[in-house]
Amino acid sequence: MTKERVSIKKISELAGVSVATVSRVINRNGRYSPETEKRVLDLIEKFNYKPNLVAKGLRTSNTRAIGIIIPDITNEFFAQVVREIEIRFFRNGYSVIVCNTDEKQETEELYLQDLVSRGVVGMIFLSGKTIKSRKIPNLPTVFIDRSASDVSDAIVIESDNLQGGYLATKELIQHGCRRIALVRDKRNISTQTNRQAGYEKALTEAGIPLDQDLLIGIDVNYESARQALIDFLRKGGKLDGAFATTDWMALGTIDGIREMGYSIPEDVKVVGFDDISISRFSSIPFTTIHQNVDQMADKAVSTILDLIEGEPVTETHHLIPVHLIRRSSV
Amino acid sequence: MTKERVSIKKISELAGVSVATVSRVINRNGRYSPETEKRVLDLIEKFNYKPNLVAKGLRTSNTRAIGIIIPDITNEFFAQVVREIEIRFFRNGYSVIVCNTDEKQETEELYLQDLVSRGVVGMIFLSGKTIKSRKIPNLPTVFIDRSASDVSDAIVIESDNLQGGYLATKELIQHGCRRIALVRDKRNISTQTNRQAGYEKALTEAGIPLDQDLLIGIDVNYESARQALIDFLRKGGKLDGAFATTDWMALGTIDGIREMGYSIPEDVKVVGFDDISISRFSSIPFTTIHQNVDQMADKAVSTILDLIEGEPVTETHHLIPVHLIRRSSV
Repeated sequence: MTKERVSIKKISELAGVSVATVSRVINRNGRYSPETEKRVLDLIEKFNYKPNLVAKGLRTSNTRAIGIIIPDITNEFFAQVVREIEIRFFRNGYSVIVCNTDEKQETEELYLQDLVSRGVVGMIFLSGKTIKSRKIPNLPTVFIDRSASDVSDAIVIESDNLQGGYLATKELIQHGCRRIALVRDKRNISTQTNRQAGYEKALTEAGIPLDQDLLIGIDVNYESARQALIDFLRKGGKLDGAFATTDWMALGTIDGIREMGYSIPEDVKVVGFDDISISRFSSIPFTTIHQNVDQMADKAVSTILDLIEGEPVTETHHLIPVHLIRRSSV
Repeated sequence: MTKERVSIKKISELAGVSVATVSRVINRNGRYSPETEKRVLDLIEKFNYKPNLVAKGLRTSNTRAIGIIIPDITNEFFAQVVREIEIRFFRNGYSVIVCNTDEKQETEELYLQDLVSRGVVGMIFLSGKTIKSRKIPNLPTVFIDRSASDVSDAIVIESDNLQGGYLATKELIQHGCRRIALVRDKRNISTQTNRQAGYEKALTEAGIPLDQDLLIGIDVNYESARQALIDFLRKGGKLDGAFATTDWMALGTIDGIREMGYSIPEDVKVVGFDDISISRFSSIPFTTIHQNVDQMADKAVSTILDLIEGEPVTETHHLIPVHLIRRSSV
């Protein structure tokens, strides 16, 4: 039994949708109803239509692979971003190669080399090291969270970290805190300096002078924060609030303070940053700043796709709004 | 200035190592010292040796890409496994394409189709749906956690779930528990049935009769567990211990029990399974079963590499040992 040979146009007519919609269904591009999808796929099956013919318009060398460079996928925030990016790319026919670098510059360079030799058509750096620009291949590239320091025209997508630091600190001030510690990643990276700028803005606005003794710059993990707060209190340091620039550091801050015999939130109030599950399910569910992962992923994927398709991309800096989530630590 | 044209043999002689070692350094295969690496890389640079010549022995069509199918990378246990697998593959010159399926069978099949069209040379299913075997392409494939139900010769790598369930339940019994609830994923999947088998084994060994009222089969998440325990206690259910087959369900169990006015561990003792960070940093750090992610990743990667290289793979079922981590919930 031979089947009638049909065109994409015929399929679209029979399905009562546009050719573009049939193409989107074939390329799993998302913007169609489940009913449309079913109707189109049924017709494709019925007429044994070979959808790969549609692809002839694509550059044949297009690997449709995107490299994504991250410090560590077991960090829940990074996992969330990678998940949302991967799902969006897959809907558009792209796949995602994940690279865990542990923020080691040499490792990052090895991955970069490897991705280029694989012919990836786009690259996303999620909290990447600030690789020297000459090492970044000339490919559609987006930086999430942190820019390559010397790439002036880089496309950067980041949470409004300044606003986050401001909201966190203001929340503490509004609840009566006057001696507010800033517990931050000691490295000079934009996420951290911007969160600190927001902290300083809120203090200034409230007429509270900045106290250098309250700036605690440490390695960015639970244990360092816990130990830093114990040390701070042992040395006679005084505080009634703390803004920690990541949720893991917030939890370390809380545990360190409690180990020294103080109560949260009665003696010291604490706000974190990220809104990962630990902030909801820890010993004290704590107030934190929520980052909008969906919006970050939307922007990253649509920008890369625009760049691949040669669409004009004029905006190079996207600030994604954040908001405060109130829990029991303030 | 022309440089002397050298062979890999010459490099190996000058470096004082075997040709195989030079090849391993070039392919980043891990088994060499940092000193050797530096010596070899320096010589490669000095003589401008083009290592890609070494690759001619490889099938030219080898994409050196591995597909890994998972429910959701934001689940910390899955993220840990993916991370360790990815790092090991990269050391061997392979990259990993990550696919989040949310355990939807149709999505899994779409990914599978896509991975095959990309020419991946190996596939790992991490807690995959039990796709019908005819849909699994004839490629080096490893199943972690769960087998494809009707693939009799599938290579399966899994934690010793029966032993885990046994250790967890025995720990509760040894601390005086007699009415021990089993809080498990209600689906009929091997990880869950094996953990239940371990639970039953420990009860039988202690002469405690199995009580159907204590078997709580639910959706596998925090909220379902919390609600299930509240319902159980509201209806007058009695328990003095609970083994929850995932850490998130253990936390839901703990919170549900506490909301009903009981204390952990005084009134009810709880053990979880996975040893993800939530078990260490939750409101009560709780006792759980540790899964050996490194060993699982080692076995998965070495098996896939053996299959790709045509090495004989005789063992098709690998049970990875687990152990109990004691914290404050028992």
